[in-house]
Amino acid sequence: MSPQQSVQEIFRTADCVCFDVDSTVIQDEGIDEMARFCGKGEEVKRLTAEAMGGSMTFQEALKKRLDIIRPTVSQIRQFVATHPVRLTPGVEQLVKSLHERGVTVYLVSGGFRCLIEPVAEILGIPLTNIYANRLKFFFNGEYAGFDDTEPTSRSGGKGLVIRRLKEQHSYQRVIMIGDGATDAEASPPAEGFIGFGGNVMREEVKKRASWYVTDFQDLIVALTMQTKTT
Amino acid sequence: MSPQQSVQEIFRTADCVCFDVDSTVIQDEGIDEMARFCGKGEEVKRLTAEAMGGSMTFQEALKKRLDIIRPTVSQIRQFVATHPVRLTPGVEQLVKSLHERGVTVYLVSGGFRCLIEPVAEILGIPLTNIYANRLKFFFNGEYAGFDDTEPTSRSGGKGLVIRRLKEQHSYQRVIMIGDGATDAEASPPAEGFIGFGGNVMREEVKKRASWYVTDFQDLIVALTMQTKTT
Ligand SMILES: [Mg+2]
Ligand SMILES: [Mg+2]
Repeated sequence: MSPQQSVQEIFRTADCVCFDVDSTVIQDEGIDEMARFCGKGEEVKRLTAEAMGGSMTFQEALKKRLDIIRPTVSQIRQFVATHPVRLTPGVEQLVKSLHERGVTVYLVSGGFRCLIEPVAEILGIPLTNIYANRLKFFFNGEYAGFDDTEPTSRSGGKGLVIRRLKEQHSYQRVIMIGDGATDAEASPPAEGFIGFGGNVMREEVKKRASWYVTDFQDLIVALTMQTKTT
Repeated sequence: MSPQQSVQEIFRTADCVCFDVDSTVIQDEGIDEMARFCGKGEEVKRLTAEAMGGSMTFQEALKKRLDIIRPTVSQIRQFVATHPVRLTPGVEQLVKSLHERGVTVYLVSGGFRCLIEPVAEILGIPLTNIYANRLKFFFNGEYAGFDDTEPTSRSGGKGLVIRRLKEQHSYQRVIMIGDGATDAEASPPAEGFIGFGGNVMREEVKKRASWYVTDFQDLIVALTMQTKTT
């Protein structure tokens, strides 16, 4: 069995599937969209480029970007109201198929819970199955920081989330699906990683992924095939 | 001139007057009222008694009480809506008299800004003249901690606020008025401390205060006397 077939086999028999959100489940990068909405798009872009140079930790980069944006409760409400979720084609059907097979689905994201909850609601994923960063605000709605104890606010956070999920629920076959390096790094502990290039294609992720797809249809088909052969 | 006369003289010529809030400007202790409202009155009382034994720092005691109450945004909104501010008799007139004389008035409190803003509004004190603790919340309104960088969240915090106000505004004669030990401790740097026993009388504060009043009328009269003698 090739490495790709091996991941396909794990996916077909998975008891838990974790999706990255930005550029995977949805077509956009939430933090960039929000930065633009708050008039800080360019500043945040520069910071992101700097962070990619490796001069700061994941959490420092998150803190610096948020310190630039400083989103208020009302800005986020307005943002959510005026930016309907743009699901990646096929993801609704894919999540539905997984749910029908009794697979538990999680959203594991370095983005913000307040932007991801609307996504989960559309997909029928319980809000308790979201692992993401939590923004904090003062009573008057001003930005007050983020929860730096959330695993997803740190480097290696997605892997830590999956390790804990496995401990708590005794999942045997966990698949992580995502477009980014932090998603690839979550396997192991995830038994398999599926790289997704339908929104953004990242060469280093493609290289690391033994199974790389650009269309969720491929995953839906893979599930269906299993049904046919059993 | 007796110590009491000396404080009276500073009060009559003060350019800045700082009021404690709980049991001074208002008749209640905000945190206790809120704890009761959230069904945690007894638990918080026990913790307060324990804290008074000196087993923990000021900030630890604050953290522990808040970790018991964990007030949500909606609980605070409900609390504020159903608990109208109970001003201590005479304080409105006193603040009005001070303002008329061109004295800058501040509220300096170990309580919570969200509960103090309504007090400031009634008294015509700008919200920027409040120094108090700031609660934090998640986007869904859940309690998320407090701003532990606020001076008022620490022991000696009121003194630090006054020292900074003097640096920033070059106040020459600052008076602190309050019912508690943390108020008495704020002088120095405040040039004078007036103990207030109109709501709660604390023996150790009374002992430390060279001028101790139980009725704001005494302070209003003291200001008026000065007007008559100049
Ligand atoms: Mg992504
Ligand atoms: Mg007090």
